[in-house]
Amino acid sequence: MVQDSTVMNPNEFISEARNKINLELSRYFERKVSEINDSSIKKLIGQIADYTVQGGKRIRPILVVCGHNLFSEPNPEVYKASISIELTQSFFLIHDDIMDQSDLRRGKPSLHKVLEKDFAGMREARRMGENIAIVAGDIAMTYAYEALAETNFSDKIKNKAMKELISITKITGYGEGIDMLTTTGMKLKMNDLIRLHLWKTAKYTLEGPLLLGATLAGYEGSTAAISAYGCLTGLAFQLHDDIIGLFGKEEEIGKPVKSDVNEGKQTLLMIKAMEYSGKDESQFIEGILKRGNVSDAEFEKIKKIVEKSGSYDYSKKLIDQFISSGKKYLNTINGDRGTKEFLLWLSDYLVTRKN
Amino acid sequence: MVQDSTVMNPNEFISEARNKINLELSRYFERKVSEINDSSIKKLIGQIADYTVQGGKRIRPILVVCGHNLFSEPNPEVYKASISIELTQSFFLIHDDIMDQSDLRRGKPSLHKVLEKDFAGMREARRMGENIAIVAGDIAMTYAYEALAETNFSDKIKNKAMKELISITKITGYGEGIDMLTTTGMKLKMNDLIRLHLWKTAKYTLEGPLLLGATLAGYEGSTAAISAYGCLTGLAFQLHDDIIGLFGKEEEIGKPVKSDVNEGKQTLLMIKAMEYSGKDESQFIEGILKRGNVSDAEFEKIKKIVEKSGSYDYSKKLIDQFISSGKKYLNTINGDRGTKEFLLWLSDYLVTRKN
Repeated sequence: MVQDSTVMNPNEFISEARNKINLELSRYFERKVSEINDSSIKKLIGQIADYTVQGGKRIRPILVVCGHNLFSEPNPEVYKASISIELTQSFFLIHDDIMDQSDLRRGKPSLHKVLEKDFAGMREARRMGENIAIVAGDIAMTYAYEALAETNFSDKIKNKAMKELISITKITGYGEGIDMLTTTGMKLKMNDLIRLHLWKTAKYTLEGPLLLGATLAGYEGSTAAISAYGCLTGLAFQLHDDIIGLFGKEEEIGKPVKSDVNEGKQTLLMIKAMEYSGKDESQFIEGILKRGNVSDAEFEKIKKIVEKSGSYDYSKKLIDQFISSGKKYLNTINGDRGTKEFLLWLSDYLVTRKN
Repeated sequence: MVQDSTVMNPNEFISEARNKINLELSRYFERKVSEINDSSIKKLIGQIADYTVQGGKRIRPILVVCGHNLFSEPNPEVYKASISIELTQSFFLIHDDIMDQSDLRRGKPSLHKVLEKDFAGMREARRMGENIAIVAGDIAMTYAYEALAETNFSDKIKNKAMKELISITKITGYGEGIDMLTTTGMKLKMNDLIRLHLWKTAKYTLEGPLLLGATLAGYEGSTAAISAYGCLTGLAFQLHDDIIGLFGKEEEIGKPVKSDVNEGKQTLLMIKAMEYSGKDESQFIEGILKRGNVSDAEFEKIKKIVEKSGSYDYSKKLIDQFISSGKKYLNTINGDRGTKEFLLWLSDYLVTRKN
């Protein structure tokens, strides 16, 4: 056990950690640019860097740091390792935006849109943008592994950390696969939805980063409580994400508010709204999800049905249950008190955030 | 130095090694399927497995084995590690086929085409097939890392091997990026073309697998001669590939003979044919490469120009030079004689093969 750290102001800790993470990201990308002697690839690396550095709350690498600090004294090398999760996130988002045909990410053009501009006026400019974005995503994934491989942890710890990163990209890949298959008509049951969220979101957002951090600390005890905290909080994170995706403001969430509906996303809000409503309203939602291209009036009507049917309250209640249950698991972990305090605060932050 | 192995019949060695590699691939995919409790993902893993197992000469994993056997006694665990290169190859090819919009691979439907069938009759079936193929490629890349991470080499060796695999996927990614950028009008010079081939082909086909194998053997000497052999032979391999891509038979190469021309690929054959021909013929080729959709008569005319201009002979001569220069480097390596004999044989095989 490490000596308990003093409880730090959470916002101060976040802001300090974020600065360190951003610095490591910039350094990493600078190294990549200087490593290679080709102007078009230098430019592409710059575009991946801009995409990664812009926006982003750095919650995931911060969780790597927390997973570490639970079980060991702070170590600057952890920040170097933590950016592997942010690079993994870039890889996921770049490919995700292509698959969803989303042209906005964090309020700015998604990467395939940025890349498309270089081919303006050419035949198949969009296709070219998407093609290069597929490669850019692949490169970002390689960078994620490389950032971890280049740290100076022991070979034993590094191999274990690699396996954790492999597990993260594998499970998230499976989640992506299921997600793709379900936007095409397959109707999701509650159990399937929970598993989808566990695989596609909770793993790489909460559980994986915490386990990766614990591994870097050399922690070899039971990971059950960390996993449970990560899974439950990750589920709550996703359900809250669906709420701000439907009820949030475009300028806050950085993407068109209608995009979830237009993509036909079967969120818990939609599933329960259909389950709790009469036949007409239920079929109305189902029709819109299948059709996409929702009008303003239809969008408002969906929101009303979600509220009136009790679906909104159902999600809210489930979020509360997941968060409080997650906190119980967190409290059983024999780790640094200051870090645990921060994570308790973070649990609440993750389900009250506006973007 | 290891005791020199007796010289084995190359075809026997290839066929024996291929069986072992195929067995390890099957076992790996069986484990993946049994690991996961979701029918749609089980099916997707099966589709990735079929894609990986079908066709494929297994030259790359065999080179991992050779890289190892140069410096150490044969070790069955090397076959387990070697499949990481075959999985990497699947990852590249799956994404490559999407980017090139190639519907055939090794004479069979490419993965996005296979996946598209599951959405037959649906709106955007092709898009769906491509989307799931993007994810399938991502999963294959993760599998490549996992297959290596799961071997029982020492932590030190495994970390070094991981770095080699990272280098392979990174450099090949850069090569893919350049390749994408050059199919869109940028005119390639000879130097650029050589670098493209080194990055996009030689690295993951020859140099990387050999270095990965040497790493697994615990080899810590100079890698300069191995790299030189790998780079030169890899370049020759690519130039020969371009020749069979233009002059080969469709039933032998497993893809439409016109596809390189239709994709506007700036092969050395095309570049030199344009350089060595008069203005009319040069502009004719340039026009076809820009336009695509080449007719039978135009295709025959291109082949004639390539031969008549001396471009074909130029490529052939360069291939010979690269192969013989590569062999010289190979002979300087202080490694197992039987393995070196096999690699000398393989050099010739790679540039005389018909597919």
